[in-house]
Amino acid sequence: MISTPFTEVFGVRHPIVQGGMQWVGTAELVSAVASSGALGMLTALTQPTPEALTAEIARTREMTDQPFGVNLTILPSIKPIPYDEYRHAIVDAGITVVETAGSNPEPHMPFFREHGVKVLHKCTSVRHAVKAQAVGVDGVSIDGFECAGHPGEDDVAGLVLIPAATRVLDIPVIASGGIANAQGLVAALALGADGVNMGTRFMCTQEAPVHDNVKQAIVEGDELGTELIFRTLRNTSRVASNAVSRKVVEVLAGGGAFEDVRDLVAGVRGRTVFADGDLDAGIWTVGQTQGLIHDVPTVAELVEGMVSEAEELIATRLRGLVTGAA
Amino acid sequence: MISTPFTEVFGVRHPIVQGGMQWVGTAELVSAVASSGALGMLTALTQPTPEALTAEIARTREMTDQPFGVNLTILPSIKPIPYDEYRHAIVDAGITVVETAGSNPEPHMPFFREHGVKVLHKCTSVRHAVKAQAVGVDGVSIDGFECAGHPGEDDVAGLVLIPAATRVLDIPVIASGGIANAQGLVAALALGADGVNMGTRFMCTQEAPVHDNVKQAIVEGDELGTELIFRTLRNTSRVASNAVSRKVVEVLAGGGAFEDVRDLVAGVRGRTVFADGDLDAGIWTVGQTQGLIHDVPTVAELVEGMVSEAEELIATRLRGLVTGAA
Repeated sequence: MISTPFTEVFGVRHPIVQGGMQWVGTAELVSAVASSGALGMLTALTQPTPEALTAEIARTREMTDQPFGVNLTILPSIKPIPYDEYRHAIVDAGITVVETAGSNPEPHMPFFREHGVKVLHKCTSVRHAVKAQAVGVDGVSIDGFECAGHPGEDDVAGLVLIPAATRVLDIPVIASGGIANAQGLVAALALGADGVNMGTRFMCTQEAPVHDNVKQAIVEGDELGTELIFRTLRNTSRVASNAVSRKVVEVLAGGGAFEDVRDLVAGVRGRTVFADGDLDAGIWTVGQTQGLIHDVPTVAELVEGMVSEAEELIATRLRGLVTGAA
Repeated sequence: MISTPFTEVFGVRHPIVQGGMQWVGTAELVSAVASSGALGMLTALTQPTPEALTAEIARTREMTDQPFGVNLTILPSIKPIPYDEYRHAIVDAGITVVETAGSNPEPHMPFFREHGVKVLHKCTSVRHAVKAQAVGVDGVSIDGFECAGHPGEDDVAGLVLIPAATRVLDIPVIASGGIANAQGLVAALALGADGVNMGTRFMCTQEAPVHDNVKQAIVEGDELGTELIFRTLRNTSRVASNAVSRKVVEVLAGGGAFEDVRDLVAGVRGRTVFADGDLDAGIWTVGQTQGLIHDVPTVAELVEGMVSEAEELIATRLRGLVTGAA
């Protein structure tokens, strides 16, 4: 066992989080993560309505008796999203851990506090982490430049961002981005973090609800196989390099506007990649960690293996390097 | 003491390298690093002629009885550089460790091998590291995206790049970029590296031959205070964010060519920053690690403190997190 302030505050066995992943964070994956002793999060907005989220929470509970959380990502969108109803669906179902992301969590804190919910806020900079701590979140999950999805616009890598953050924060810190194995877990702990978040690694497990072609693409891909899209729109996203993402980069670099790529980036296309395994059907999210992923284990194999290898790495390799007197 | 295959192969006490730094890697800094038990490198091309390098090696030897190396960076340049004469100056002076950088080390290997020189090759990708191992270098120093100076064009951060590299290499690997303290050293060891390289951290020591204004700027700066210049020329360099570097970024982003910024980036301007402390006089190199640097210690304080803190981090923090049975 590896116990940290994060495992204590959030009430889980292992300091490993499977945070929100659009189209991926459903009952199949989240229940497996919960049963493994890590902290899985259902992705609220993967469900089309608050009622569907309520049903998905119930379905997850049928598959595990261990605790899990819900990710609520709050972003500007064209079609208004009933965030308030999703929030109520979460607390009415008795969920006690929420991962917030995408904007300042402050407006949601009184409601979650009142309902006894622990909040893990995801952000991409030291200043946003400090702000989140100030408004009362229970922990922060900090994404470095190498992460899949939204790294922000600062481009600070985890080796620097995590120790810069842990130096000034008192609440538990989860290192996110660039981590896919025991080496990354121990590195994160050495940098002062209290645990790790993994997305791409959990996408490439037996239980992840994505087509086998996607998992094989991650196994075969390397650390070079991603693109940063929407850079010119200051809404950067790291996604798999494919015909669609490269086209989006090209159009925007050539002075194009969002309207010029709107059809290419439609979310339904990404869902098609995951469901049908047509890797060039649309934009899909993956991180540089695919260079560290070489198999498709069950979630239990992954989590138990990571924790026992991390213990071994600390006890054997690192201790073994320390020799004689300083 | 922390002993690794790197300290064994390269014959130094500590797994810490101060690699080549233009205008900074002179006898003052390198002798202090050597005396501390880390591996310092004189920067060959900071000396105007091979004869001047010979004299600088002699001057360093007057200041320390410990071994040190020489960095030889081989890049395309407008004015032809007599690399062959620099190589001869290095081996004629009895130097036994060389850091190569900037291009494929293969053409130089027979000469260095013949003269009993250990070669540490600096590169920025797994494929270049594998190639360097194949042509016979004794170790590789791998720069991640977060490094100062030349990160290459792949933009892979150290958290991913280092374990991806150490997985496929047999020779010692030095993690470079993003590391400035004991946390980074232990993280690098956890990721499979055999040591770390630091540039910005060594620039901000008492002995570094740069103006105090530069050291104060590093202490006061944070992880956001860098710019990537020459991106459009595919010769990216991470430098301090100042009026000059921001202008260079602007001109090139607007479609400018190298000729349009040639005067702004003239090396003599960077030398002026370091010598006179006028921080806006030109381009000067610094890394994201300035967000982790809060003091100006002596080199001995820095190296000894890092090693003993790293030992403590392994023995206390990391061991302490491992609890009970898995």
